[in-house]
Amino acid sequence: MSDQLNNPTASLLIIGNEILSGRTQDTNLKYLAETLLTKGIRLIEVRVVPDVESQIINALHALRSKSTYVFTTGGIGPTHDDITAESVAKAFDTTLELHARAREILLGYYGSEDQLTPPRLKMAHIPVGAELILNPVSGAPGFHIDNVFVMAGVPKIMQAMLDDILPSLSEGHKILSHTVSCNLGESMMALQLTDIQNKYPETDIGSYPQYRAGHLGVSLVVRGTDKNMISSAATDIKQMIISLGGEVTTEVVA
Amino acid sequence: MSDQLNNPTASLLIIGNEILSGRTQDTNLKYLAETLLTKGIRLIEVRVVPDVESQIINALHALRSKSTYVFTTGGIGPTHDDITAESVAKAFDTTLELHARAREILLGYYGSEDQLTPPRLKMAHIPVGAELILNPVSGAPGFHIDNVFVMAGVPKIMQAMLDDILPSLSEGHKILSHTVSCNLGESMMALQLTDIQNKYPETDIGSYPQYRAGHLGVSLVVRGTDKNMISSAATDIKQMIISLGGEVTTEVVA
Repeated sequence: MSDQLNNPTASLLIIGNEILSGRTQDTNLKYLAETLLTKGIRLIEVRVVPDVESQIINALHALRSKSTYVFTTGGIGPTHDDITAESVAKAFDTTLELHARAREILLGYYGSEDQLTPPRLKMAHIPVGAELILNPVSGAPGFHIDNVFVMAGVPKIMQAMLDDILPSLSEGHKILSHTVSCNLGESMMALQLTDIQNKYPETDIGSYPQYRAGHLGVSLVVRGTDKNMISSAATDIKQMIISLGGEVTTEVVA
Repeated sequence: MSDQLNNPTASLLIIGNEILSGRTQDTNLKYLAETLLTKGIRLIEVRVVPDVESQIINALHALRSKSTYVFTTGGIGPTHDDITAESVAKAFDTTLELHARAREILLGYYGSEDQLTPPRLKMAHIPVGAELILNPVSGAPGFHIDNVFVMAGVPKIMQAMLDDILPSLSEGHKILSHTVSCNLGESMMALQLTDIQNKYPETDIGSYPQYRAGHLGVSLVVRGTDKNMISSAATDIKQMIISLGGEVTTEVVA
């Protein structure tokens, strides 16, 4: 739907063995998706790759060609397994250089020159031509180069970096949603729902079944940019639920 | 590391606008990763794509060429936005057909012939040549065709389907891990950690910083298949922590 509006789009590259091993539950995807939507930017693809240079580079190339912005999370710390900056530099056919302002930030954070050990200075090396993304939580900055935004993987730091990035992003038409939840199974309403989707082709209607406390239910989510059209589709959905003998349990307009 | 052992690998394709919009927090990735590791199967890549046929097909082709097994979650319900089965059929240059056993299962679940409405029968249509994956939670089965396993997105159903799939997968060398957490920042130990990684090249050592209750700490995770080598690397790590004036806060061997 939003493609018709030339809204900006985004993709996310999650870099880290700890996500692929199941050790760490990613929460950055959901946070990024919700935050970008407030600016009318849709997340259109996500990839998770290990800390392997060739895979990071290949995924970056693929995602850059598909979306207005590419965000990465993870792999920008001081240890041997933090290879994101180096990989991004290579993807842009450039190298890392010590960034004067980044060094200054780390000096402020760690307090004295003798604390700027090689591993810490590693975090002040960013690709030639990149600009810093500030990190008020733990000093070491992220960076952006062209349409790629390189952020930390620790959620609290990632969120702070995203605050720094947001004002610089293009704003799209705001994407609104209207969610109607009910106590019917989705197979009961599938045909009518198809009709409603066809009646409002400029909205996206999603049907999400759930089991709560042993009870079957479904949430129907109408998304789009035209408030009146979304509202009309939601009204049709509520009438459908009632005509099928169901009950609207909750309704959220966002 | 495990590549040297020709261990089986897996990738995951998460299909669903609800994940990309941030509406739903995915938990299947972590569950799948942890479960597969118990069989010595490593998850090597994950992609999240919207309910768009061409994107599902492209991602399937890419992931099939990279990993022993491809798992998909989402999009196999009765509504208009459930297009996974159709997309998988197209990816395999085949079509959907009504599967007799799947129809029988749905008949048992819904109770009578007149309950087998077109939307419900849609869930009994699977690609020609595919085999069923049983779903004890809500009847409608998943399926597998060649190296692709198509599962539901609802976690409880996905987990039940995975139980049905697991016995059929090849078993790899079990991947063991030894996690040592401490109260030091990772930049303090980065150089020594590189030395330890170089000393034990057949293990993967990951360094994961965390902030808990305002305190900086780091978890060092050694992974591999050789119990003695992992144990030696963990011992070196603990000695390093103590030599740097730190304290081992927790230790987990799995």
